[in-house]
Amino acid sequence: MTGRQKIGLVGGTGYAGAELLRLLSAHPEAEIAAVTSRSAAGTPVADAYPQLRGVVDLAFSTPDEGGLESCDVVFFATPHAAAMHDVPRLLDAGVRVIDLSADFRLRDAELWAQWYNTEHAAPELIERAVYGLPELGRREAIAAADLVACPGCYPTAILLGFKPLVDAGVVDLDRLIADAKTGVSGAGMKLAPGFLFAEATDSFKAYGVAGHRHLPEIRQFLGELARREVGLTFVPHLVPMVRGIHATLYASLTENADLQQLYEQAYADEPFVDVLAAGGTPETRHVRATNMCRLAVHRPQAGDQAVVLSTIDNLVKGAAGQAVQCFNLMIGAPETCGLTATAPVP
Amino acid sequence: MTGRQKIGLVGGTGYAGAELLRLLSAHPEAEIAAVTSRSAAGTPVADAYPQLRGVVDLAFSTPDEGGLESCDVVFFATPHAAAMHDVPRLLDAGVRVIDLSADFRLRDAELWAQWYNTEHAAPELIERAVYGLPELGRREAIAAADLVACPGCYPTAILLGFKPLVDAGVVDLDRLIADAKTGVSGAGMKLAPGFLFAEATDSFKAYGVAGHRHLPEIRQFLGELARREVGLTFVPHLVPMVRGIHATLYASLTENADLQQLYEQAYADEPFVDVLAAGGTPETRHVRATNMCRLAVHRPQAGDQAVVLSTIDNLVKGAAGQAVQCFNLMIGAPETCGLTATAPVP
Amino acid sequence: MTGRQKIGLVGGTGYAGAELLRLLSAHPEAEIAAVTSRSAAGTPVADAYPQLRGVVDLAFSTPDEGGLESCDVVFFATPHAAAMHDVPRLLDAGVRVIDLSADFRLRDAELWAQWYNTEHAAPELIERAVYGLPELGRREAIAAADLVACPGCYPTAILLGFKPLVDAGVVDLDRLIADAKTGVSGAGMKLAPGFLFAEATDSFKAYGVAGHRHLPEIRQFLGELARREVGLTFVPHLVPMVRGIHATLYASLTENADLQQLYEQAYADEPFVDVLAAGGTPETRHVRATNMCRLAVHRPQAGDQAVVLSTIDNLVKGAAGQAVQCFNLMIGAPETCGLTATAPVP
Amino acid sequence: MTGRQKIGLVGGTGYAGAELLRLLSAHPEAEIAAVTSRSAAGTPVADAYPQLRGVVDLAFSTPDEGGLESCDVVFFATPHAAAMHDVPRLLDAGVRVIDLSADFRLRDAELWAQWYNTEHAAPELIERAVYGLPELGRREAIAAADLVACPGCYPTAILLGFKPLVDAGVVDLDRLIADAKTGVSGAGMKLAPGFLFAEATDSFKAYGVAGHRHLPEIRQFLGELARREVGLTFVPHLVPMVRGIHATLYASLTENADLQQLYEQAYADEPFVDVLAAGGTPETRHVRATNMCRLAVHRPQAGDQAVVLSTIDNLVKGAAGQAVQCFNLMIGAPETCGLTATAPVP
Repeated sequence: MTGRQKIGLVGGTGYAGAELLRLLSAHPEAEIAAVTSRSAAGTPVADAYPQLRGVVDLAFSTPDEGGLESCDVVFFATPHAAAMHDVPRLLDAGVRVIDLSADFRLRDAELWAQWYNTEHAAPELIERAVYGLPELGRREAIAAADLVACPGCYPTAILLGFKPLVDAGVVDLDRLIADAKTGVSGAGMKLAPGFLFAEATDSFKAYGVAGHRHLPEIRQFLGELARREVGLTFVPHLVPMVRGIHATLYASLTENADLQQLYEQAYADEPFVDVLAAGGTPETRHVRATNMCRLAVHRPQAGDQAVVLSTIDNLVKGAAGQAVQCFNLMIGAPETCGLTATAPVP
Repeated sequence: MTGRQKIGLVGGTGYAGAELLRLLSAHPEAEIAAVTSRSAAGTPVADAYPQLRGVVDLAFSTPDEGGLESCDVVFFATPHAAAMHDVPRLLDAGVRVIDLSADFRLRDAELWAQWYNTEHAAPELIERAVYGLPELGRREAIAAADLVACPGCYPTAILLGFKPLVDAGVVDLDRLIADAKTGVSGAGMKLAPGFLFAEATDSFKAYGVAGHRHLPEIRQFLGELARREVGLTFVPHLVPMVRGIHATLYASLTENADLQQLYEQAYADEPFVDVLAAGGTPETRHVRATNMCRLAVHRPQAGDQAVVLSTIDNLVKGAAGQAVQCFNLMIGAPETCGLTATAPVP
Repeated sequence: MTGRQKIGLVGGTGYAGAELLRLLSAHPEAEIAAVTSRSAAGTPVADAYPQLRGVVDLAFSTPDEGGLESCDVVFFATPHAAAMHDVPRLLDAGVRVIDLSADFRLRDAELWAQWYNTEHAAPELIERAVYGLPELGRREAIAAADLVACPGCYPTAILLGFKPLVDAGVVDLDRLIADAKTGVSGAGMKLAPGFLFAEATDSFKAYGVAGHRHLPEIRQFLGELARREVGLTFVPHLVPMVRGIHATLYASLTENADLQQLYEQAYADEPFVDVLAAGGTPETRHVRATNMCRLAVHRPQAGDQAVVLSTIDNLVKGAAGQAVQCFNLMIGAPETCGLTATAPVP
Repeated sequence: MTGRQKIGLVGGTGYAGAELLRLLSAHPEAEIAAVTSRSAAGTPVADAYPQLRGVVDLAFSTPDEGGLESCDVVFFATPHAAAMHDVPRLLDAGVRVIDLSADFRLRDAELWAQWYNTEHAAPELIERAVYGLPELGRREAIAAADLVACPGCYPTAILLGFKPLVDAGVVDLDRLIADAKTGVSGAGMKLAPGFLFAEATDSFKAYGVAGHRHLPEIRQFLGELARREVGLTFVPHLVPMVRGIHATLYASLTENADLQQLYEQAYADEPFVDVLAAGGTPETRHVRATNMCRLAVHRPQAGDQAVVLSTIDNLVKGAAGQAVQCFNLMIGAPETCGLTATAPVP
């Protein structure tokens, strides 16, 4: 490293963008050079995010005038089907890209088109993209990458939760179940009635039961871990809270195993995965605003059902924090750089 | 019926007690004659529950001075291991009893002792008690009973959710999964740190994974429906909301079935079970403060996994409302009497 | 009364409309004949409000096809500047109108135009409209009216709170202060970022400090009570809750007075105003989903400052419930008919 | 500074204690040496606060065994009437003390005894204690102090809000009004029914209207600013949120003044006070988990009433953060050291 990295951020007006600004503005190796937003161009960033008053002094620029090509690293915090149009130009200009959107997560452009209802604009880049979940055993690939596709929030919690069981080969891979719960910030700043305070508070519901866009992503990487296709039922739910994902995972054991030991060993060296003591039940508030994944594994009544409880902050380990973790790997900084804050509780 | 029923309420200071007072004070066939509480004796009920100012004019009495023996029907809204001491005396006095606690739900006194950590004080009454879940096909028994054991909140949501599948014999009964979520009022007015606003809000967690007291109750009645033992994994979770249970139920289909039709037919005549149209996702707020159970059944990606979403208000259909429903059956009133209010939404 | 009143509801897709449907569907003297909504025409009402499944079987109609002219009473739960266009036609057809919007509250069409940024379309009807706050001493006028202008939510809480002090002439009328707090449902189903769960929860702020539209309404009726102009500072705030208004009112005493007695006497005969015992502090949850206003009056450290705490449910006593109260007066039904439900607490 | 300061924390099991641990564990000049708690002695700190897993490795010790005398600085985060017993011993041992409790805030031991219902155990130290609100113009005194009495949360928000008006001498000092709202964490981890989630959520109420313990503290320091006695009405309210205070302050202007300019100038050099642009309305979430006070000043309808909106995080600027700010002054570190984190929003 020679000096701070010049950072560009595309799509700075959503929650993942705000979280990137919070993390990168305090990161010793980063210098935020441009924050783009077509809708907010010209507005000071701190007007949109009063919490950044005195911290970020830039105004939003348009993607064209933003000088993104002269950045070292550009983060995309855009809705899907945006980054795929702009990334090729930036890669050609020698800029490294960290994409928080879904554009380069699926290996199969056809499958992508089917789940995202549009043709993929840069299918030739899919293979070049490295999936940005370091704990999946791809740190070197991330470090060397010029295009990182950061995982979705649900896939992060669910893949980290299932990985030790799948690696150990002790569960029935045809009938995995992921009953997942998310805070409302998972939907971004979406102006739909269901996300109004008066509609979302003090209630609980499932959604997307027929098929959520994170399903093929989870299946793809569970399949890579297992080296075969897996059967997964994935039911997401909406919790009246802001941040946090809690995935409750069910798998039938096909052979005996010391699950506690399995998880502790699997994650012994991971700075961002914390396996609770036997019997523990992680709470999303204890990972709030942090890059930690806290996990517990249970085997109720000593039966043949494994139950894994996996918690993350969807905006940090599920989005902006994981992107910064990948950024650290890419620039050769310590992996935890800028990511060590403790959750403010209560 | 000749005139209003004289009603006694034992344990009137908890949430189920408050809810009974709300429902019974507006019930055309009920006259609240005594509300007992050792800790609050002498205090006007409306001081404890300002929402009842001008509605309930009684003061709490002690159970002894309360004149319970001269009531027609006595409701117990006590913690477990209380009713079993007082019920025998009341039955001897010719009083009919509706017990909202766990004391007479399990058929096996040994099993009860094991889960509730104390000897059962009245095992001879267990057989006499009728389980108060009318939709389980026991309306006549409830109507004739002098001791009704009202179901727990989780069992209500889960049994109503699984019943059509079990009745139809189309699922693998060895691997049922109930991933259940409750609002905090399920714990009653428990003064434990975890139920403080600052601790419970804006977070999500599982609890009781090793074994919740509702597990043997659910297993017992699923077993009665199936006429065999069933395997059930039951994981309860705490949601930062006040009222409501949402049970997400998973079962592997062993044969093909039109699940939507199955559920619609099963509950066609039930006034308090509402099967949503195909693809629906019930929300707990839509059953808030009502005696309704709203259900949806799904079969994601047309696979072999059935997913049932079952919602109730834990304090109404899961406690006080179900007790009033049983009361109506017992006194020959219309089953919906006093239970027709619509949920205030938002 | 001869038979149920045929009721029309214009603007049935907002929160006040939903609340009117909840109240009127259970009202023994009302028969809902038409619910209009341009945006939702053709949709079953119960699809928009699942809580009304099995309760309201109508579909939304357009205002034109709705048959409003053949109704006995039509309620308007529209945004401002809508009713004023349609009311003249209905009055000409002999229909009585209860308008929950702001269109006919201000006596001065110029002032109205200034605060609502549009010309008044029916200034000739302003004088004909009766302000629908029965406790302000206008029951006979309401009973005889064919056009009732229901008060805003803040005005209801604040006028009921100040009335005894103003009537008694014991406070400095030049420096009244109303520090008011509302739940988010006060904004209706407004799709603005500030009302998203993730933005509104776990935070508190003032808004509209420079001038809220309810200010001229409150001033006008305080002035009528006082028979002179009054000086009022009114600062509204947004609370992370759904329903409820809590107005904290400050007035300097100009002469000694027994404030507790003053309030108890003033409201002794009012079915919907409940004065708490000395020292009490009303909570909005205790009036939730009810038509009650609960009040307390304080004089801290026996000084010369009166502090009044006034609570209502903004959607009931502050909107739909008050409209039904007026409806009862208009049709000669008992004033509390259909309005006696107790708040579900917790 | 020569090396890190050895820090002791007495009363580490409350919210202010937890917040001190969060801030001090990341503070470059602090080394946490002892955390005492009689009730939790022997328990690892991270068991009580799972968010500190991997961050704080100490166990709670008893105050006696804790080695507090060998610390450089000891923080007290105890309930009132505890520190006053232990502070003399520590001062004698040459330890500097930062007391977050109320013990040394009031100048008058009689007044203290009256409001806190117990005799003061160390009245001789009252004069020695420096009030730890740096923005009140006492930085040098704090830097030199060996006993700092940190302000209460309400006094911090209210004194910072009123200071420019009082300093400028432009308001009627006999009729100040502070209508204050706090999140529930202000009560600490108090196990009282009113702080349960089910009781505190979705509701709003005033409390302590007759007299809150922060009243004499606010009056004392307003009096010091004004060099005369002031008249203040102070009404606190409880908001269903975790952190945050919003004080809405009312004062009658006695002469004309450019309030916006007044506030901007008064706080131009303060790192922790942020005056919003004219017309602004601060939100508590924008100061969440930070040491900032965000303020706005209004003059509605250009009348003679000043309205100040003052927001802080009660656990940070209102407690632990302010204590760390004083600590920085005492050890000669930059005043903002360890206090620069941005609020995680949403």
